[in-house]
Amino acid sequence: MITHIEHIGIAVKSLEEAIPYYEKVLGLKCYNIEEVADQKVRTAFFQIGGTKIELLESTSPEGTIATFIEKRGEGIHHLAFASDNIEADLAHAKAEGVRLIDQEPRAGAEGLSIAFLHPKSTMGVLTEICQDKNK
Amino acid sequence: MITHIEHIGIAVKSLEEAIPYYEKVLGLKCYNIEEVADQKVRTAFFQIGGTKIELLESTSPEGTIATFIEKRGEGIHHLAFASDNIEADLAHAKAEGVRLIDQEPRAGAEGLSIAFLHPKSTMGVLTEICQDKNK
Repeated sequence: MITHIEHIGIAVKSLEEAIPYYEKVLGLKCYNIEEVADQKVRTAFFQIGGTKIELLESTSPEGTIATFIEKRGEGIHHLAFASDNIEADLAHAKAEGVRLIDQEPRAGAEGLSIAFLHPKSTMGVLTEICQDKNK
Repeated sequence: MITHIEHIGIAVKSLEEAIPYYEKVLGLKCYNIEEVADQKVRTAFFQIGGTKIELLESTSPEGTIATFIEKRGEGIHHLAFASDNIEADLAHAKAEGVRLIDQEPRAGAEGLSIAFLHPKSTMGVLTEICQDKNK
């Protein structure tokens, strides 16, 4: 079951440029910066209410975030829903005809199990389902 | 002060097509459909944890949502932060050098006072600040 919005992923050219905006203008606090090597990103996290903002900076010109920014400019990249049973929610989405990018959960930032649904099946929103299996 | 993410605004071609995805695949419940005439949109709301998803369908081919979809396709349109003092947060953003789309709050959906920050000042994210002054 989907329980809440885990985070909103935002593609930025530079964490060093973006973090001060979120901290000084919006008053949020960056609590973690983490590199996810296999996704070629460096991420910065902000807690806000029951959800998070995840800024994504590409560590490679060939990375998906670099490609996204080249095509569309900086901006919101994906929406991540927290699940209490990611395998069941993926199977349910597939049964409802949704195209899955990841057939099985894989490792994401912050130790989460994550999987993406294809934006062609979700009215243009790159949608992540994720679960913290350490909880 | 910004307290939480009030909602995520998502541009869709058709509420009738999009609502079943959010209800059947993600298990959310649409609790309200509302037309905001001066923004030329029809909106559908879903509560999820402490925040909301707001689907936006254009009621006119000249509306901002229709223009957005024509240029970029369906997808996430804006991010709205709840404030406990929208005038103070707007003044603070302006003092920090952020370009404001709305110099003063105006009426939005669900009785909120809303104002937008320009995406050129927010690393590509069309950012809304809003306050429920009826609370």
